[in-house]
Amino acid sequence: MFVIGERINGMFKNVAEAIKKKDKAVIHDLAKKQIAAGANALDVNVGPSSDNPKETMEWLVRSISEVTDITLAIDTTKQDVMEAGLDACKAKSIVNSVNANDDKLKNLLPLAKKYNSSIIGLTMDKSGIPKDSEGRLELAMKIVASCMEHGIDISDLYIDAVILPVNVAQVHVKEVLKAIRESKMLADPAPKTILGLSNVSQGSLSKYKSLINRTFVSMAISAGLDAAIMDAEDNDLMEAAITAELLMEKQLYADSYIGAYKKSRDLH
Amino acid sequence: MFVIGERINGMFKNVAEAIKKKDKAVIHDLAKKQIAAGANALDVNVGPSSDNPKETMEWLVRSISEVTDITLAIDTTKQDVMEAGLDACKAKSIVNSVNANDDKLKNLLPLAKKYNSSIIGLTMDKSGIPKDSEGRLELAMKIVASCMEHGIDISDLYIDAVILPVNVAQVHVKEVLKAIRESKMLADPAPKTILGLSNVSQGSLSKYKSLINRTFVSMAISAGLDAAIMDAEDNDLMEAAITAELLMEKQLYADSYIGAYKKSRDLH
Repeated sequence: MFVIGERINGMFKNVAEAIKKKDKAVIHDLAKKQIAAGANALDVNVGPSSDNPKETMEWLVRSISEVTDITLAIDTTKQDVMEAGLDACKAKSIVNSVNANDDKLKNLLPLAKKYNSSIIGLTMDKSGIPKDSEGRLELAMKIVASCMEHGIDISDLYIDAVILPVNVAQVHVKEVLKAIRESKMLADPAPKTILGLSNVSQGSLSKYKSLINRTFVSMAISAGLDAAIMDAEDNDLMEAAITAELLMEKQLYADSYIGAYKKSRDLH
Repeated sequence: MFVIGERINGMFKNVAEAIKKKDKAVIHDLAKKQIAAGANALDVNVGPSSDNPKETMEWLVRSISEVTDITLAIDTTKQDVMEAGLDACKAKSIVNSVNANDDKLKNLLPLAKKYNSSIIGLTMDKSGIPKDSEGRLELAMKIVASCMEHGIDISDLYIDAVILPVNVAQVHVKEVLKAIRESKMLADPAPKTILGLSNVSQGSLSKYKSLINRTFVSMAISAGLDAAIMDAEDNDLMEAAITAELLMEKQLYADSYIGAYKKSRDLH
């Protein structure tokens, strides 16, 4: 699975502090630790409370670039912050995210094209997140069609069927799994699929969060999930994902398959 | 999930010893521990080396009956041993198992009818286990049709799509998941689905067995699995199964959902 580390996000206290103090060492450390744990890319989000989000995004992206040239997912709802992040990123980038609103697609897809970025497309629009898989697929189809119109390669598109917290939206879980499975039929080649994984356990008891995350990621991988924004440093979660991919034959069996996977990627 | 505890099986050394010495205490203890851990039923198998399997099956069933009236799955390939087990069982019983061979169906379905037993139907026949889901479904359909002919309620039938060890049959895993999903469309009401779960990790390194089992059970539950013959005393596995059922909305969300589940069943 393509793992996007979720930790460089201003909603975490240590990141908010580091942003405030312009403390690069914290950001360097978070980047290195997530990569060592198995992240294939890093999410970058200035968080909710940044006074100058554009400048903060640039600072975060430049700081990360000092220690790695891994892919960065520029995670913001603001167009100027998005462009600042994409522009500062010397490595491969991901637009995180567009949704099915016309203005989002019109404004952000040309940016993705300009910066040769991959795109995360959320199956939601001004009316919110559809309750069922059919509604999600309709919005996914709209995003796919819009990417095609903008000359974007569909294999660069990650459809995110938007998992909600199981504690308040239990009925959505199986709809998301169905939407992942059926997204694969929207185009040929198919779009990729992604989830903001930790959202499923948001608000659940701390002691159950990792269990909920790893159980859900196993299910989602069996439905065809290609990527997740997740806690790469949760070793139990990473091992569940590796095992799920083994069972789905995305990695060849070896007795020491987890060791083999980690060794092949030079992970700790 | 309907959990059938796998431990009373002569292939385990302590059970083989207990059978040899007619040591009921070991059997009582295994029955009680599995039930305390969450088993809804117990599998009973005399193992490969029993000299007098019929008598041994009777002894095992009677011994278990001294401490519980839980459902017993009489697990044997021999018809006389099956009948001995069903006859000795005063509680609800399960015929474990029939397959799609004509003689098996002809001989065992009347027995199931006579003893009012549920039935586990393996999707295999004289030619072996089909490689793909389509082949498995064909055999499942044959079993469903034969049950109907024998006047057996299809909701008493558990289709077992036969998971093989991932270390030698990796390609089968996703076919089994697909067969589970599609078995639900074979009749209305649908047959139930079951797996001999531990088989998936048979031959894998000991340190990965539980991880493989719990990752696979999560996937299988998302495909619609209703029951499993499994290690009920593996707490990580039980918690994965409970969480998977929560995510599939088979249990209503509660913050302390695992505690609530265990409390509702008076488990330890």
